[in-house]
Amino acid sequence: MTSRILIRGATIVTMNEDEEVFGPGDLLIEDDAIRSIAPEITVQEEKVTIIPGEGKVAIPGLINTHNHAAMSLFRSYADDLPLRDWLENKIFPAEAKLTGNDVYWGTSLALLEMLRGGTTTFVDMYYHMDEVARACLESGVRAVLSHGIVGINSLLGHKTFQGATNFARKWNNEGNGRIKAILGPHAPYTCPPEFLKKVLKKTEQFNTTFHIHLAESRQEMQDSLDKYQKTPVGLMQEIGLFERAVLAAHCVHLTEEDIDILVSREVGISHNPGSNLKLGSGIAPLTELLNRNARLGLGTDGAASNNNLDMFEEIRLASLLQKGYREDPTLISANEALGMATRGGARALGMEYIGVLKEGAKADLALLDFQKPHLQPHADPVAHIVYSASAGDVETVIVDGKILVEKGVCQTLDEEKILFEAARSAERLRH
Amino acid sequence: MTSRILIRGATIVTMNEDEEVFGPGDLLIEDDAIRSIAPEITVQEEKVTIIPGEGKVAIPGLINTHNHAAMSLFRSYADDLPLRDWLENKIFPAEAKLTGNDVYWGTSLALLEMLRGGTTTFVDMYYHMDEVARACLESGVRAVLSHGIVGINSLLGHKTFQGATNFARKWNNEGNGRIKAILGPHAPYTCPPEFLKKVLKKTEQFNTTFHIHLAESRQEMQDSLDKYQKTPVGLMQEIGLFERAVLAAHCVHLTEEDIDILVSREVGISHNPGSNLKLGSGIAPLTELLNRNARLGLGTDGAASNNNLDMFEEIRLASLLQKGYREDPTLISANEALGMATRGGARALGMEYIGVLKEGAKADLALLDFQKPHLQPHADPVAHIVYSASAGDVETVIVDGKILVEKGVCQTLDEEKILFEAARSAERLRH
Repeated sequence: MTSRILIRGATIVTMNEDEEVFGPGDLLIEDDAIRSIAPEITVQEEKVTIIPGEGKVAIPGLINTHNHAAMSLFRSYADDLPLRDWLENKIFPAEAKLTGNDVYWGTSLALLEMLRGGTTTFVDMYYHMDEVARACLESGVRAVLSHGIVGINSLLGHKTFQGATNFARKWNNEGNGRIKAILGPHAPYTCPPEFLKKVLKKTEQFNTTFHIHLAESRQEMQDSLDKYQKTPVGLMQEIGLFERAVLAAHCVHLTEEDIDILVSREVGISHNPGSNLKLGSGIAPLTELLNRNARLGLGTDGAASNNNLDMFEEIRLASLLQKGYREDPTLISANEALGMATRGGARALGMEYIGVLKEGAKADLALLDFQKPHLQPHADPVAHIVYSASAGDVETVIVDGKILVEKGVCQTLDEEKILFEAARSAERLRH
Repeated sequence: MTSRILIRGATIVTMNEDEEVFGPGDLLIEDDAIRSIAPEITVQEEKVTIIPGEGKVAIPGLINTHNHAAMSLFRSYADDLPLRDWLENKIFPAEAKLTGNDVYWGTSLALLEMLRGGTTTFVDMYYHMDEVARACLESGVRAVLSHGIVGINSLLGHKTFQGATNFARKWNNEGNGRIKAILGPHAPYTCPPEFLKKVLKKTEQFNTTFHIHLAESRQEMQDSLDKYQKTPVGLMQEIGLFERAVLAAHCVHLTEEDIDILVSREVGISHNPGSNLKLGSGIAPLTELLNRNARLGLGTDGAASNNNLDMFEEIRLASLLQKGYREDPTLISANEALGMATRGGARALGMEYIGVLKEGAKADLALLDFQKPHLQPHADPVAHIVYSASAGDVETVIVDGKILVEKGVCQTLDEEKILFEAARSAERLRH
């Protein structure tokens, strides 16, 4: 039997290029897809779940294109430290103790936060990925999951490559297609060229996306130039990575030529302004990338380097940072900023069936309560969302046609249990 | 009869330099002041209002050192525009229509947002200030209010000077001392040197603070150098402004010598990172100012250029922006960032009886609910507040010993009426 949900009388921010803001009007969902958006939709009420939309604004579910969800266990564990100190003396020792159980609860904690904050799709890279996938399936979220591959020695290279390919084969397209399982070669500096070439060769028949950290810090840029006389992007181009579908996280330190490559090879880019600031990585050339029509999405990165998973903050930062740094208030308009977190993320992932509200798109969306002082008086809803809203304004979240969050409460996850178990894991890992 | 409030079993972030985080413990308020903070305080329960503090974190009420509260009527009215276009074609024409009634409702809207978000003291500069003061008195907030003075011609100069001095004389120390009324010469570029010298002379006997916009944009810096061969700060030093108590908003474009002057003359500085980014003003030399022990507070500026009044965002931005821009994650620690929004703001205003939780300080504080995914697992509460929290996490707000916000609902203001009246004013002003 067809399941139907009708959102009645909401302002609808479609993010569809033809018609950005619609309404107030109605939006009808049938099963996992949007059936129609119109001024008034008539239905037989007893067969439909009705969600009153007055005073509410519907947006496409937000797409978080870079995360390490389970690292929410390390939120505020170690801040304000030099990068190497943070990694080597804090994060790596704590991660060495991680079990599958920890990853399950850490991921669940992140899922609770993301879903409650209107994120309906996220991209992950981590380990113990079976546990990540299990948590994702239970939550109802849409997810693009990558098992990390690290080739700093042949044993680890072999083990993580096997783990990653097994994971991708096992989980891809599970959960009515909500789970995409892809490959996660960690970064050029942990996957040396010869290793990465082997990975590419061994996966020639494997139609998958590669998720990689790329050009994150000035140090990475300098090391790559010293060692290979190539930028990280140039090196990846040379070894043929970009002949495959790639989602590259960060892309902060880029030359003009790097930008040419990323644009011409249609590389998906996850811009992660919060993490880039917090870790002292720098400010990405977002304006140039956007002007060149690069495939830009927005990500939070893990909660150890953000420290929350509120996509509204990334949207706002993406815009404000360029305006302020370049001293030009016209850069990165509200519409461009929200676009990156919705249709832009979908394009970066090659999943154009999400990220917009239109007939036939997947029913992934969030409803925001606008009857709050900071979202008043009535004005351009896109500007309110970008410059004023936050995760706490999200009231209802629907993924794949299922209501996952209602009145701010996650329907699929047991919040109390997750907070308890995540606290227990964190306590052990941090000592 | 003495009124007593006991917060029981909360984690207490005192921001007192001796003891940053205390507890879980108890905090007892008697009338308008904090009576004691201790592991366990025994009271006769029938005579005390008890607030359960388990899972909650108490912080000093946040101090917003720069705002134009009534401009919340222009939130999201005009974004992403060049500064001059924004001011001359949008803001000034809309402001020209402002009545006292509009300012009353616009200020009330901002007060609702600020109080619900844990701001207990704010600094304002605007017009129709009697209406601002009236709204502040009703709300119970602590406020430092300045009537703008603009000397671009002698008529306006005379009128605004009279308005400002009358306002300051009438309202200073009203509301049990919660209202401070000071003078607001708008900026060096709207108050030419000769005019400002006259203002200083005429107010020689008037022991008041001057609130001024200073060195906000590169254009202001260049114009000042062209016209006076002095930086804005250098010019103000020359005409003697800094012989008085001054709170200077913005201070983005500063020379080394300007920083020397601001530090040696003990000028209070409102750092407003959100507004500085959004208007494309630039990134202030916050690290240098902090290293020199400048009197730094944090402000949102008006909602037309922010666009919300969430001080947690300013705290986070103050830290993240310096880390990222300077590519150094050790800059502006969590403690320094929260410090600016609490004891720092108090110091910038010369009001050291607020901004810390300690015996004898005024009872201005906020209680945050930490039982939320983005504030878990348990870790350094200051890091959680700075890097993860937002206005929506504030549950209870107390100013001058009175509970103004309880379970997120403002007890002194009529939210429904304010949203309605502010919408009505905004509708008229924007057309």
